[in-house]
Amino acid sequence: MAEETKVSAVKAPQQADPMEASIEVSTQEMIRRAQKLQIETVFDRAVTMKPCAIGMQGICCKNCAMGPCRLPLPKGGVQGDDTRKGLCGATPNTIAARNWIRMIAGGAAAHSDHGRGVALTFLSVARKETKDYTIKDPAKLISIAPYFGVATTVEVDGKKLDRDIDEIALGVAEAAVAEWGKTDGFLSYLKRAPQPLQDKWEKQGVKPRNIDREIVEIMHRTHMGVDQDYKNLLKQGARASIADGWGGSMIGTDLQDVMFGTPAPLQAEANLGVMKADHVNIIVHGHEPLLSEMIVAAAQSQEMIDLAKQNGAKGIQLSGICCTANELLQRHGIPPAGTFLQQELAIITGACDAMVVDVQCIFQNLANVAKCFHTKLITTHPIARMEQENVIHIEFDEHYAMQDAMRIVKMAVENFQNRGAEVMIPQHKTTQIAGFGVESIQYHLGGSFRGSYYTLNDNIINGRIRGIAGVVGCNNARTKHNEEHITIIKELIKNDVIVLTTGCSAIAAGIHGLLTPGAAAVHCGPGLAEVCETVGIPPVLHLGSCVDNSRILLAATEVVKAGGLGNDICDLPAAGSAPEWMSEKAISIGQYFVSSGVYTVFGYSLPLEGAPVVKDYLYKTMEDMYGGMWDCEADPVKHAHKMIAHIDKKRKALGIDKARDRVLMDMADRQKLGME
Amino acid sequence: MAEETKVSAVKAPQQADPMEASIEVSTQEMIRRAQKLQIETVFDRAVTMKPCAIGMQGICCKNCAMGPCRLPLPKGGVQGDDTRKGLCGATPNTIAARNWIRMIAGGAAAHSDHGRGVALTFLSVARKETKDYTIKDPAKLISIAPYFGVATTVEVDGKKLDRDIDEIALGVAEAAVAEWGKTDGFLSYLKRAPQPLQDKWEKQGVKPRNIDREIVEIMHRTHMGVDQDYKNLLKQGARASIADGWGGSMIGTDLQDVMFGTPAPLQAEANLGVMKADHVNIIVHGHEPLLSEMIVAAAQSQEMIDLAKQNGAKGIQLSGICCTANELLQRHGIPPAGTFLQQELAIITGACDAMVVDVQCIFQNLANVAKCFHTKLITTHPIARMEQENVIHIEFDEHYAMQDAMRIVKMAVENFQNRGAEVMIPQHKTTQIAGFGVESIQYHLGGSFRGSYYTLNDNIINGRIRGIAGVVGCNNARTKHNEEHITIIKELIKNDVIVLTTGCSAIAAGIHGLLTPGAAAVHCGPGLAEVCETVGIPPVLHLGSCVDNSRILLAATEVVKAGGLGNDICDLPAAGSAPEWMSEKAISIGQYFVSSGVYTVFGYSLPLEGAPVVKDYLYKTMEDMYGGMWDCEADPVKHAHKMIAHIDKKRKALGIDKARDRVLMDMADRQKLGME
Repeated sequence: MAEETKVSAVKAPQQADPMEASIEVSTQEMIRRAQKLQIETVFDRAVTMKPCAIGMQGICCKNCAMGPCRLPLPKGGVQGDDTRKGLCGATPNTIAARNWIRMIAGGAAAHSDHGRGVALTFLSVARKETKDYTIKDPAKLISIAPYFGVATTVEVDGKKLDRDIDEIALGVAEAAVAEWGKTDGFLSYLKRAPQPLQDKWEKQGVKPRNIDREIVEIMHRTHMGVDQDYKNLLKQGARASIADGWGGSMIGTDLQDVMFGTPAPLQAEANLGVMKADHVNIIVHGHEPLLSEMIVAAAQSQEMIDLAKQNGAKGIQLSGICCTANELLQRHGIPPAGTFLQQELAIITGACDAMVVDVQCIFQNLANVAKCFHTKLITTHPIARMEQENVIHIEFDEHYAMQDAMRIVKMAVENFQNRGAEVMIPQHKTTQIAGFGVESIQYHLGGSFRGSYYTLNDNIINGRIRGIAGVVGCNNARTKHNEEHITIIKELIKNDVIVLTTGCSAIAAGIHGLLTPGAAAVHCGPGLAEVCETVGIPPVLHLGSCVDNSRILLAATEVVKAGGLGNDICDLPAAGSAPEWMSEKAISIGQYFVSSGVYTVFGYSLPLEGAPVVKDYLYKTMEDMYGGMWDCEADPVKHAHKMIAHIDKKRKALGIDKARDRVLMDMADRQKLGME
Repeated sequence: MAEETKVSAVKAPQQADPMEASIEVSTQEMIRRAQKLQIETVFDRAVTMKPCAIGMQGICCKNCAMGPCRLPLPKGGVQGDDTRKGLCGATPNTIAARNWIRMIAGGAAAHSDHGRGVALTFLSVARKETKDYTIKDPAKLISIAPYFGVATTVEVDGKKLDRDIDEIALGVAEAAVAEWGKTDGFLSYLKRAPQPLQDKWEKQGVKPRNIDREIVEIMHRTHMGVDQDYKNLLKQGARASIADGWGGSMIGTDLQDVMFGTPAPLQAEANLGVMKADHVNIIVHGHEPLLSEMIVAAAQSQEMIDLAKQNGAKGIQLSGICCTANELLQRHGIPPAGTFLQQELAIITGACDAMVVDVQCIFQNLANVAKCFHTKLITTHPIARMEQENVIHIEFDEHYAMQDAMRIVKMAVENFQNRGAEVMIPQHKTTQIAGFGVESIQYHLGGSFRGSYYTLNDNIINGRIRGIAGVVGCNNARTKHNEEHITIIKELIKNDVIVLTTGCSAIAAGIHGLLTPGAAAVHCGPGLAEVCETVGIPPVLHLGSCVDNSRILLAATEVVKAGGLGNDICDLPAAGSAPEWMSEKAISIGQYFVSSGVYTVFGYSLPLEGAPVVKDYLYKTMEDMYGGMWDCEADPVKHAHKMIAHIDKKRKALGIDKARDRVLMDMADRQKLGME
């Protein structure tokens, strides 16, 4: 009772301070507008709703009905033996590890279910059950076929001939779909990893048997009274995360590339300012490109453009939010209108004629915001509906993909006339280059012969590039919108660390102007600037959506293969970061990077503070097991420097720290040396 | 901070009052002994640790790191619109439904992973990779083969001949293992359900595609920003629960019967008093009979009996806790030493030489208790270890099953000499008849021709038996140990409702003397007493462990098939109950009963109070969808009468309420009628 009162007490109406909520101007403008219109946004709720302090520490267990048991750390930490336990005797270690791997289960399920949807659609394509999707990149299909044991050549009369692409497609599709539930062996894609990493997985017993089973086993192990050894629980977490990164996500990315084309660098705009007052504005939001690829085609059709004009609009402006935005950006140059935290704001412009959503990271509050405007909020996925009555559900069926997409676009176009509130689109947008990937990095940084990362490696070895960082992940309303992403990325490139980015971090980087070759001269250290200027790339490379973090795994593998930087991913001068993480997917991604040898730093806070032993295991012991380990640092500058310190540690281990000193020594350093 | 202090404050050392903790005498005695020895048990922790009031209401969401968001009901309930929402806008409905189906995911994963283990072991048997397991019940194997599409006969020269049993075994094993991850069609066992129920599942879109996928899809749908329509979330919960009841659990039960024998009624003892001071006491605890079946064989081997005698013991006394107990009881008459809440107490006797555990419902605190005695605590399952150093892990491999079992029994036997503390075994035990199942009910209550439930149906129709109740599930330290189980069961049989029981409820019924034919005369109404006495069965039938709740589904289906009581399970005068539920498995079981048409009442509390709309949907709307619905009633007498009222409602709908009135009218009723 006392507790309820307290929670209610903090709910007194309060509003966010726009300047404290975001570093981004159009976001600040739209928060102000929302507040003026008395429309509540996530930024306000972050002020009025306090997170549960015990839950945040990771030591609340609600896995059985004798609880929820709460095991807060005593003030001043544990003195002597830690005797905290739940009713069953579960220790803080057990509880924190259970919570940790259930997050991995949620995240891996989300990514892998996305991948499954892609694989099933590809199976429809291979079986010629749908005409709306085709094979746009047969070369990619041929490149992945061998991993699934599918032959790409046939012998006829003793001669090796190319095999029919439709046969290859069917073989790959069937094998890919089977990865979720096969009963023998291990995941097919594990063999793409460097051999020493595969050996580590073998030794640690974390090779996934299939994708679904590892997620289900997490749910079993974390059930009341099953696994009560945090080390064993975390082992299963690692296994399921590998099933995500080297399984569901990687298959998802690959087959999306096969069907929709492998991205190549292209120019586009970013931010809320991409919306156009005199156009029909359709915003696609979510994660799966299956639907949104069709929306692109429908929105570009003459029929719909004509209809838009009949309805008084000058045309149709399509833009994206979250990873759907990244998918359309990297393949079509469709501009992102914003990150995760800007989803409500896009509607608050008054110019959003339809927001079309699929799965993941969609605010249920969109329905409440849409109600204040003419915006049609359209859910499309059978597994992601909303309870509010103003939400329209048009279920998307990949067998009638184009038909469904046309229906949705038509609804948006016809809604243009219904705009009521004054339209206010912030006049801020930036230019960016996106669409990098394993293949395009190879092309741009690959040096004289294709198929190698030689030039990249050479520049790392000679110290122009100090190292590689992956900066990825969500926004979180508990941190200042985009501040951590941008501060960390700037600090890294200033220190000659090239950045690969995906997800909302990539959108943030685009919005803040870091995804242009020009950013090199402004923000980079001299070594990285030189490389970027020579090659003509931005210092921050946009690699796609959150399932596309699998591209980073493969890029790292290519760097290992190119030679000179050790034998495994963990040998590379590289580090990962999710500065403003929010979702369970981020934990799954973080864990698969750690399990693949990457030092991975999260921002904000990790739910481990109540279980120091588990924290220590993740932050330290895992390095001995996988070569990678977790860390958490809320301060963005310190966060970047922890990554740089790790990169320097790896440079030293590789014996390339000296070279780096020589290259980067500037006048101040020389003077300092002279004075000592 | 304030919160932490408050939680710490309630942690002041306090102890349970044994008389308030349990209605069972030996439990009370052992709690007293534990307190005297200053050994903390779950009963004490239930006093010192308060459950989180918000979590208990189901409206704490920790599915993303912007939370945990807490949405307690305002005092006096919601006035006007319910505007509570999490940072993303998730409503109490979304949050409660997410939490609800994640419980189903945990429970279904636990049962189904158990079933998978059994299926994989059976595959080893079929492939002749192990000699320690065999096919003990080929008739059962032949009876289930057609559901998996495996032929049981072959045509040779135009004649139908029995197919080789090894071939059938291999076909069934391979098909069964594939149920977890197959990519086409629906679960094979769905077709065992009455056709109208299959039609309902079809209409509601809840036919499971395979077992693992439905669990994984729950984890995806409940991820931040995915499914935000409680109706849609609960639909997936129903689907996954069906994958448990008519999938993982049912396959588990069937293949256990095939390998270890289908249970038939047998006599045994129950309660802590089955332990013997002068014997080596080995207690098996957990759920999977794979290991414990071998422990039985090892403990009965002359080699081990001789070794026990060499060590000064008179023999080896094997007993069980939880569902492992039920598995060994129903097939071998091995006595249960206690329920879930008695697991620590068995060690506190000082006479437990080894406690051997596998998966589920095992207190991590066992390690702390074992440390106070000579007891060897042995974990055996790769996915269920304990972090404490005094726990011995002997990993059980079904390929070396007997070898592993001998090693474990030897360790226990050799530990007999190390007994230190004074042994105190409570002198309470009862006699029981256990080992009922679909087949034995058919035999005992089947009337003149085998293969029919005709006599049972006839006695229901004529009103001697008012209806059928399933009373199942856990103990919960938040309720008085066994009180709800026993009060409810007694109230039901007093009102002529025959009770089928499994799990810890079945152990409780055994301990409290309700599993004997003699109980009929003492506790039953005249109609049920007459039937029990005529047929020679107890009024409460022990149907096994918690995966064996699938037996209840099949028994209900048989009753439907026998005719005269409607066309579907939901037409039967039947109800389900889990009076002292605690685990996520219980929610999965409850949901699959509801989804199969059974009115299912839980005791204690369900995490729905904070989301009245979701509660209403589960308690009322589901009846229109599946014929069954949820309810919750903590008061055991009211609880039983809610079940009886439902049974009467169904009798009325069937038009057999009149017959019942005639039979049950006693003298008081007649007098009452005369006076009015």
